[in-house]
Amino acid sequence: MIKNLEKYFDRLWPINRSITGPGFRESLDILSEIIPMERMFFKTGQKVFDWVVPKEWTIRDAYFIDPKGKKHAEFSKNNLHIMGYSTLFKGTISFDEFKKHIYTIPHMPEAIPYVTSYYNEKWGFCISQNEFDTLSDGEYQVYIDSDLFDGTLEIGEAVIPGNTDKEILFSTYLCHPSLANNELSGPLVMAFLYQRLVKMHSRKYTYRFVMLPETIGSICYLSKRGKHLSKYLIAGYIMSCLGDTGNFTYKKSRQENSLGDKAAQIVLKSTKNKYSIISFNPADGSDERQFCSPGFNLPVGSLMRTIYGMYPEYHTSLDNKDIISFKALEESVEIYYLIVKALEWNKKLISNIQYCEPHLGSRGLYPSVTNSYTWKDDFSAIKWILNYSDGKNDLFNIAEKSGCRIDTLLKAAQKLLNADLIKEVA
Amino acid sequence: MIKNLEKYFDRLWPINRSITGPGFRESLDILSEIIPMERMFFKTGQKVFDWVVPKEWTIRDAYFIDPKGKKHAEFSKNNLHIMGYSTLFKGTISFDEFKKHIYTIPHMPEAIPYVTSYYNEKWGFCISQNEFDTLSDGEYQVYIDSDLFDGTLEIGEAVIPGNTDKEILFSTYLCHPSLANNELSGPLVMAFLYQRLVKMHSRKYTYRFVMLPETIGSICYLSKRGKHLSKYLIAGYIMSCLGDTGNFTYKKSRQENSLGDKAAQIVLKSTKNKYSIISFNPADGSDERQFCSPGFNLPVGSLMRTIYGMYPEYHTSLDNKDIISFKALEESVEIYYLIVKALEWNKKLISNIQYCEPHLGSRGLYPSVTNSYTWKDDFSAIKWILNYSDGKNDLFNIAEKSGCRIDTLLKAAQKLLNADLIKEVA
Amino acid sequence: MIKNLEKYFDRLWPINRSITGPGFRESLDILSEIIPMERMFFKTGQKVFDWVVPKEWTIRDAYFIDPKGKKHAEFSKNNLHIMGYSTLFKGTISFDEFKKHIYTIPHMPEAIPYVTSYYNEKWGFCISQNEFDTLSDGEYQVYIDSDLFDGTLEIGEAVIPGNTDKEILFSTYLCHPSLANNELSGPLVMAFLYQRLVKMHSRKYTYRFVMLPETIGSICYLSKRGKHLSKYLIAGYIMSCLGDTGNFTYKKSRQENSLGDKAAQIVLKSTKNKYSIISFNPADGSDERQFCSPGFNLPVGSLMRTIYGMYPEYHTSLDNKDIISFKALEESVEIYYLIVKALEWNKKLISNIQYCEPHLGSRGLYPSVTNSYTWKDDFSAIKWILNYSDGKNDLFNIAEKSGCRIDTLLKAAQKLLNADLIKEVA
Repeated sequence: MIKNLEKYFDRLWPINRSITGPGFRESLDILSEIIPMERMFFKTGQKVFDWVVPKEWTIRDAYFIDPKGKKHAEFSKNNLHIMGYSTLFKGTISFDEFKKHIYTIPHMPEAIPYVTSYYNEKWGFCISQNEFDTLSDGEYQVYIDSDLFDGTLEIGEAVIPGNTDKEILFSTYLCHPSLANNELSGPLVMAFLYQRLVKMHSRKYTYRFVMLPETIGSICYLSKRGKHLSKYLIAGYIMSCLGDTGNFTYKKSRQENSLGDKAAQIVLKSTKNKYSIISFNPADGSDERQFCSPGFNLPVGSLMRTIYGMYPEYHTSLDNKDIISFKALEESVEIYYLIVKALEWNKKLISNIQYCEPHLGSRGLYPSVTNSYTWKDDFSAIKWILNYSDGKNDLFNIAEKSGCRIDTLLKAAQKLLNADLIKEVA
Repeated sequence: MIKNLEKYFDRLWPINRSITGPGFRESLDILSEIIPMERMFFKTGQKVFDWVVPKEWTIRDAYFIDPKGKKHAEFSKNNLHIMGYSTLFKGTISFDEFKKHIYTIPHMPEAIPYVTSYYNEKWGFCISQNEFDTLSDGEYQVYIDSDLFDGTLEIGEAVIPGNTDKEILFSTYLCHPSLANNELSGPLVMAFLYQRLVKMHSRKYTYRFVMLPETIGSICYLSKRGKHLSKYLIAGYIMSCLGDTGNFTYKKSRQENSLGDKAAQIVLKSTKNKYSIISFNPADGSDERQFCSPGFNLPVGSLMRTIYGMYPEYHTSLDNKDIISFKALEESVEIYYLIVKALEWNKKLISNIQYCEPHLGSRGLYPSVTNSYTWKDDFSAIKWILNYSDGKNDLFNIAEKSGCRIDTLLKAAQKLLNADLIKEVA
Repeated sequence: MIKNLEKYFDRLWPINRSITGPGFRESLDILSEIIPMERMFFKTGQKVFDWVVPKEWTIRDAYFIDPKGKKHAEFSKNNLHIMGYSTLFKGTISFDEFKKHIYTIPHMPEAIPYVTSYYNEKWGFCISQNEFDTLSDGEYQVYIDSDLFDGTLEIGEAVIPGNTDKEILFSTYLCHPSLANNELSGPLVMAFLYQRLVKMHSRKYTYRFVMLPETIGSICYLSKRGKHLSKYLIAGYIMSCLGDTGNFTYKKSRQENSLGDKAAQIVLKSTKNKYSIISFNPADGSDERQFCSPGFNLPVGSLMRTIYGMYPEYHTSLDNKDIISFKALEESVEIYYLIVKALEWNKKLISNIQYCEPHLGSRGLYPSVTNSYTWKDDFSAIKWILNYSDGKNDLFNIAEKSGCRIDTLLKAAQKLLNADLIKEVA
């Protein structure tokens, strides 16, 4: 998988994505080779809740020439140089006027910042502070060849049906230009997770995958699917910042204790690595803010690695291939897959023998000779399941109480089902 | 305010206060210049719950003369020298007999202790251990010119009416003689807080201020106002130990989570200083023990600085002007004022847009150009309020969840009300 | 008591106990001198829940002779040498075959392990690794003179009736051969606790004491008494590992917050020593696993010292008189006695004066002269009881809230009952 991840990363990397436009479309097309997505379309000017679908943006070329005749900020070399949604401008202006259109990061003098202005028609260039410091007074020739026009915003969606109408959602965003961890990592992990899930023999739940432009995309999406999700969604995850080698962080849904929240935490606890759990926070983050707006309050959290704003390269030209690891991306796919497995296998069980322990030895589940050196983890799991399968607790509750790994519990539960010692509660 | 605080401190300091008598009355008179109080009267012998109003006490002079003819413990020099409520005694007694009437603090040899005997007719002198060590065997001439007689116990009360009949109570005690932190600080802070509140343009709540003798005073007061307070009180505070420069300590009411408890904790959290929160404890403390007796169980806590018994000068002659700060007293007024503001402004709000976030940019509440360096605290507060204003949470809940400062939240709420994005829940 | 404890220990020590058989019976007989027990009988083959009562086991002698003619593993010297429930075998076998029947502890080369095979007919010897290392290839003469036959499993039970039909249970197990801490300590502590309780003047609760073989014994017992206990049991304790000098550990019942759980924790908190509280855990432990099986879910915890598996000598020949202390055993009796006292004395009280504090001085419960140096613990307890005796809290709740020692609270409650300031809630 690692090679494939890198191959797709390299194809997607140079494309200039934004919340609309040809770059977003092309990226969806490429990813559809792995995860075949249907398209949803929203027309410019369409009202979606409190928002309006913006114009579509196309950029062909952009740069500026300094008084000495040197060319700077060439869009063709790095698409971060042009502020997202910059309007068409071709002309010559004074340095004083021009400076108002320049964005740099003074404390990271080598980095080009990532800046956008979706809802206010402006133009701007993003350059490193070092480059800015070479500029001097005089006349600047500006060339921005872009269009803003009534078009469409697009969303890609794929569904893998399950045996019930209960659904699990994965959502990610594809609107960032050449930025690696935040955010080509999310779409890549989603695509390869899809590959894993579609190969599962059968599925209890229906899986829904969405790739959209951040914020406005999830608002558009909810205008179409919000009602449906309110009815069927039991767990959801925003996939973001999944490419670096940092520890995992799970940001809980606004519900704080949904099945999805439990699944993510139980799986993280079953790994050997450190991880962090953070509460829902509407003040920063990504599309979970829309899914978890009070009217919807959907069980949507976010499993990430080092989160947005917590690594210095975030939203700069330094968030590139150097800071991500394809092995880490593969691990991210794997951990999401473990969450799916945990959700699929979680059950409320009831022991057939409620009074005293069952006699395990006669069922081959207990060593015939007892000394204190024959203990095993899976035997512990068997005892926990038997005692707490009282019709009230599911395996997630038992995992929380016992501290047993969820995979060990799943194996033990299967043994006990085979031995007819427990049965599933309807 | 600092100058004024000191001026009143200096006038009140030398007066010999007790739970009844002319010193208490004179102190009430002086404080009434700042906070005009009505008087309540309780006659000696009147039954108040399980207690009986004690006799009134007057002391004109007291001292004793040692065998060498030296005069000691002159009341006219320090009113702590005479045990509170000492009975009249004039005569000569042996050292052995006399010693039973002397109180010192062996481990603080320079301090005169503060001792009383309200409910047991006795007499006594309080002197430093150093002074005691100079005394030798022989005859002692004792002179205590005091009276205990059927009189009245008085309480001062002031009310600032509000727009609703819900009430907030401030109670302090004025029965300590020349002692500074515990307790001239409480009455001074109350008087100057009154000045702040009476100048507020309008008030949602009615504010009730009470100055009384400790314990018996609050019991008398509750015999008159207990029923009323049970009906209308939403928050109350015992003002005590507010003059030193230590960190604040909030002792919660017996209810543990009343509106008043939340307000105090949220305001403390919004300051930059360390503070402590302690649980309700009926075993020590002050009048909150009466307000929080199980039958009343009123929402009365206590916001203090270094609490009684936690500073070595407590209840000794060393609790004097040297250990208090008028700047600290002013800060104590200020923090109580912030609590009032928090209570006044706390509201349960509901967002007009419940589905997805509102579009803040078009309302001037969001920077038009988005990069990761434009973040501000008040923007965070806006997001928290919008998401959690679901008709269930008030601003206090949002402060607890978000960790935002309450003043930042109040400002943000105002912006959102102005922008018609939220409205108050009736 | 210490001398007596040692005397009984020495008499019980050499007896070869197992879950059935003459050793178990003889041990019950000896302990019945201190705690007169009635016997319950369960016949081989009888079905008890999911289990079947096993055959009765008798062993007369056992040893083996190595190729050099040396005698090893003589049962008459140490009864741990023979695996519990070893079947009769007399014959000569090769070393390779013989090795399958040998149990050692490689990482504790001097210890003989304690091994059993109750439900699988086998034979085996337990020797030290050091002894095993002296054995060489060749023919081994094995001599095991034992019987497995249809007999009975026995349980001893004693009851001290109380004034109500609510019951407190103590259960311990007597099925271990010559092992000291785990487990002659439990039966010894139980027997001497019985002596203490039977001498109490009167008892609110009925006390039930049970000595049984571990696991199968408690299952048999519950088949007879389960229904009764479900109706009447309010607290129960498995007595085990009570002889070493380690700190106490309380393992909570599955209910987690039963009256018995509270009593044990409150008493431990009132001692000066460190202790641990652990949650219920069905994966290891002793008979609480049966009492706390989901169908019964009885309030049965376990107060121990260093628990099974947490000391290296556990289930080896090193768990002998050297690692226990008769003083520690006496302390264990004492702490169980304190738990009984706490349970007996715990009451829900209500203050006769609910509005304001009562006037304690006039009842001799408050120092007549008040200064800040007259404070006492029991005065604190008085205040806590008065304030929280609102008809909702019992003394256990007040102990938890106040942090007062339970014995101090009991004394204070008695004073308040005498002063007619509180009364018991029916």
